[in-house]
Amino acid sequence: MSENIKQLEQDFLEYVKKMCAYGEALSLVYWDLRTGAPKKSVEQRSQVIGVLSSEVFQMSTSEEMATYIKNLLSDEASGVISEVTRKTVEECKKEFDRNKKIPAEEYKEYVILQSKAESVWEEAKDNSDFELFRPYLEKLVETNKRFIQYWGFKGNKYNTLLDMYEPGITVEILDNVFGELRKKIVPLVKAISESNAKPETSFLFENFPKEQQKGLSLEILKQMGYDFQAGRLDETVHPFAIGLNPGDVRVTTKYDEKDFRVAVFGTIHEGGHALYEQNISKDLIGTPLCTGTSMGIHESQSLFYENFVGRNYSFWKQNYELLKSYSTGQFNDVSVEDYYRAINESKPSLIRIEADELTYPLHIIIRYEIEKGLFNDEIEVKDLPQIWNEKYEQYLGVRPDSDANGVLQDVHWSGGSFGYFPSYALGYMYAAQFKNTMLKDLPNYDQLLEEGNLQPIREWLTERIHQFGSMKKPLEILQDVTGEGLNAQYLVDYLYDKYNKVYSLN
Amino acid sequence: MSENIKQLEQDFLEYVKKMCAYGEALSLVYWDLRTGAPKKSVEQRSQVIGVLSSEVFQMSTSEEMATYIKNLLSDEASGVISEVTRKTVEECKKEFDRNKKIPAEEYKEYVILQSKAESVWEEAKDNSDFELFRPYLEKLVETNKRFIQYWGFKGNKYNTLLDMYEPGITVEILDNVFGELRKKIVPLVKAISESNAKPETSFLFENFPKEQQKGLSLEILKQMGYDFQAGRLDETVHPFAIGLNPGDVRVTTKYDEKDFRVAVFGTIHEGGHALYEQNISKDLIGTPLCTGTSMGIHESQSLFYENFVGRNYSFWKQNYELLKSYSTGQFNDVSVEDYYRAINESKPSLIRIEADELTYPLHIIIRYEIEKGLFNDEIEVKDLPQIWNEKYEQYLGVRPDSDANGVLQDVHWSGGSFGYFPSYALGYMYAAQFKNTMLKDLPNYDQLLEEGNLQPIREWLTERIHQFGSMKKPLEILQDVTGEGLNAQYLVDYLYDKYNKVYSLN
Repeated sequence: MSENIKQLEQDFLEYVKKMCAYGEALSLVYWDLRTGAPKKSVEQRSQVIGVLSSEVFQMSTSEEMATYIKNLLSDEASGVISEVTRKTVEECKKEFDRNKKIPAEEYKEYVILQSKAESVWEEAKDNSDFELFRPYLEKLVETNKRFIQYWGFKGNKYNTLLDMYEPGITVEILDNVFGELRKKIVPLVKAISESNAKPETSFLFENFPKEQQKGLSLEILKQMGYDFQAGRLDETVHPFAIGLNPGDVRVTTKYDEKDFRVAVFGTIHEGGHALYEQNISKDLIGTPLCTGTSMGIHESQSLFYENFVGRNYSFWKQNYELLKSYSTGQFNDVSVEDYYRAINESKPSLIRIEADELTYPLHIIIRYEIEKGLFNDEIEVKDLPQIWNEKYEQYLGVRPDSDANGVLQDVHWSGGSFGYFPSYALGYMYAAQFKNTMLKDLPNYDQLLEEGNLQPIREWLTERIHQFGSMKKPLEILQDVTGEGLNAQYLVDYLYDKYNKVYSLN
Repeated sequence: MSENIKQLEQDFLEYVKKMCAYGEALSLVYWDLRTGAPKKSVEQRSQVIGVLSSEVFQMSTSEEMATYIKNLLSDEASGVISEVTRKTVEECKKEFDRNKKIPAEEYKEYVILQSKAESVWEEAKDNSDFELFRPYLEKLVETNKRFIQYWGFKGNKYNTLLDMYEPGITVEILDNVFGELRKKIVPLVKAISESNAKPETSFLFENFPKEQQKGLSLEILKQMGYDFQAGRLDETVHPFAIGLNPGDVRVTTKYDEKDFRVAVFGTIHEGGHALYEQNISKDLIGTPLCTGTSMGIHESQSLFYENFVGRNYSFWKQNYELLKSYSTGQFNDVSVEDYYRAINESKPSLIRIEADELTYPLHIIIRYEIEKGLFNDEIEVKDLPQIWNEKYEQYLGVRPDSDANGVLQDVHWSGGSFGYFPSYALGYMYAAQFKNTMLKDLPNYDQLLEEGNLQPIREWLTERIHQFGSMKKPLEILQDVTGEGLNAQYLVDYLYDKYNKVYSLN
């Protein structure tokens, strides 16, 4: 009998390998489309995407898959199949359940709705016309509510959506940590607004030629330990990192010649994502486990590098001459201390993706509170613009002048991605918790940055996080690494400590 | 009944579209591997290639495909299905027959042999050690002989191999035209060797920075009518053009800073291939007909541009200032007449891919004669080095100093590609025949080049050749365009006319 199971395990792994191969081809197609595929390629390339995706979808919901899941999760299989196989089956089962519970006809309608809603959203945003988008958003919310009934839920209905992006995370957990964050950050933001010690920042916005920015970005990626034999850096409109396999993890960035920070901090951020994917154990190749375990843990790696490395004083003490050597003189009369303060300016703003590290969590909390309200029938779509604007005023002290700069700013909802936003702030909290634990092993953290020696940091993260890919769930990693659960205090401490200094508070 | 056929036609076209989608994904993978995929991506990417290729192979040899072929080529289907469908079925049938007639086990062994032989060939070439490669080459020839028995043959056994790359071309045809070419070119080459009017060429080899070469290459592609919204130019080691679909046809080139001709003439050559693929009728998208009809016709387009445009005096009269503006002064003291003579220098040499346009056909003829001998049991593999060297001495007046520069120089045989070489010379003859006909419609051909107005030339080729993709067979195109069959005389006339002038012969 165990012989049969062994054979089934082999067949299953072959089956999954094939799905992963299609997935890798799809990733290459996406990367290409976003980095330089000719304009006229797109129409036909969409066909290719359609064929490959529906093949993957069919394989993930096939009778064959159902049989693998049933037999490989049976009592007799446990103890026979490997740990990697078992977790792979579990991952496949999750996907299978998610896809099979929605009636095919309803799912098809939903896909069409998503695609229509995205293009209507674009128009609505361009014209700052929420009413245009409203019926689509209502339908998207409605459909997701129905899907939640199909999928089932534990406790709060919104938990089902949260769990898709961050398994194990619930409203109960988020209410707690986001409440804490809000309570602490709002007054700090207010204190900063009232501070007179505003950093001078005008020198940041002088001309920094694109090719020079690229050279600098490459140097920093190298310092981070990004393996250029297993990746490359390209230009794009909306930067991203993508892991095709651990031997091929590509980073993209964009260059603004009037604001070099876009490329430099963008590259460090995406580089953090890339280090995660490059350092996953090779044993997981060819399985769905061979990628970051969740949006939140992924974001913890990118934010770790962007904020705890890239916005750290010691890092720039080491790299300020390098920065100067690539620039055309804009920093000549600026001390590294003033530069450090400038890149850590904090100012409440309307647009999430332009927010600084202090105010960013508030943007996320607003979206979380709204989504939670929507899926618990406490908020109606028609009231969103008003609710949005009130929350911005209350938490950030700024009120959107238009829905384009308010409720219509993000693409996520138009694609039906509810439950995604919290990952950004979760990643930030995870990162602060990891950093706190790291300091116990690497008490000379700042000194390492000052020496340009980022290797011990990367190795620490690889040993505890990267290598496992999706073998561990987010809260499992957090517990294993830090010995505790989600805790907002570490992020709060970091922010208070840093911004009190930058703005000479207290 | 006709209703059933209509439905079957639709199903078949969907089936074929899916195969094409896999093919397009594969093309993107190949392009990426050859233009900048990170080194460590390769191992896993090979898996992706394996999965996608074997999916295509299985679909092309499936029972489902057999049923489509049988029913759609039936009497009752003719008149019901479209012309495009019928030609698509015929193309699929050809592929089906080719693949199904070889016993699966033997084909598998052959694939392994090919891959081994390629790596042994590399080593053998590096060490100029024919004996190392000999047993593999013997086995490759032997296997292909056996395959010819499976596939069947008409007339000469070698015809079966020729037909794979150039449908309709036979030994009988090639003996005739290659005999003619050889008879005429050998004495011209000899006369040139003895001429005292050798062009001065040293100025060609001065430093020409890579970025400048790239700028020039882009300008020339634009002049040719290459659509940059449907393609892009990248750098690679062994240049190629690749059509993913007519809206995405990519050109690659390489830059030698000590010899700008590599990039410029290479880009024009690949650009000629690309114009073919960019201008195929959109009606053929999603079928195997949406690509050039044969190696030879493809080569006719690349050689047309490389030689009849790129090595034409009027073209450079128009573009000499452009060339000068990208160079760093190497042509300052050189007249356009002297430049023209320099780029048309002809000199017998040992290496095919470095040969000039006059001696090139002789390199091909030598390979043709050898392949024909091998498959008709008139030549044995063990005697190849000697036969090779003797033919070079006889036709070109040069004798290889080593097998690395002789019989081991080309990769083709190590991959089992017998019957491929003749396409190169066929393309050249086709091109000369097309040019001759074009002159009747565009008697101001040289003037167009001198005005930099290549559009009428591109349109002429599109109307008569490009648009049809694989809807017509090579000899059908030749007949339709020129009103006659294969005829070496036009190429001979071109070469005599040109080289008599360049070398002041007669």
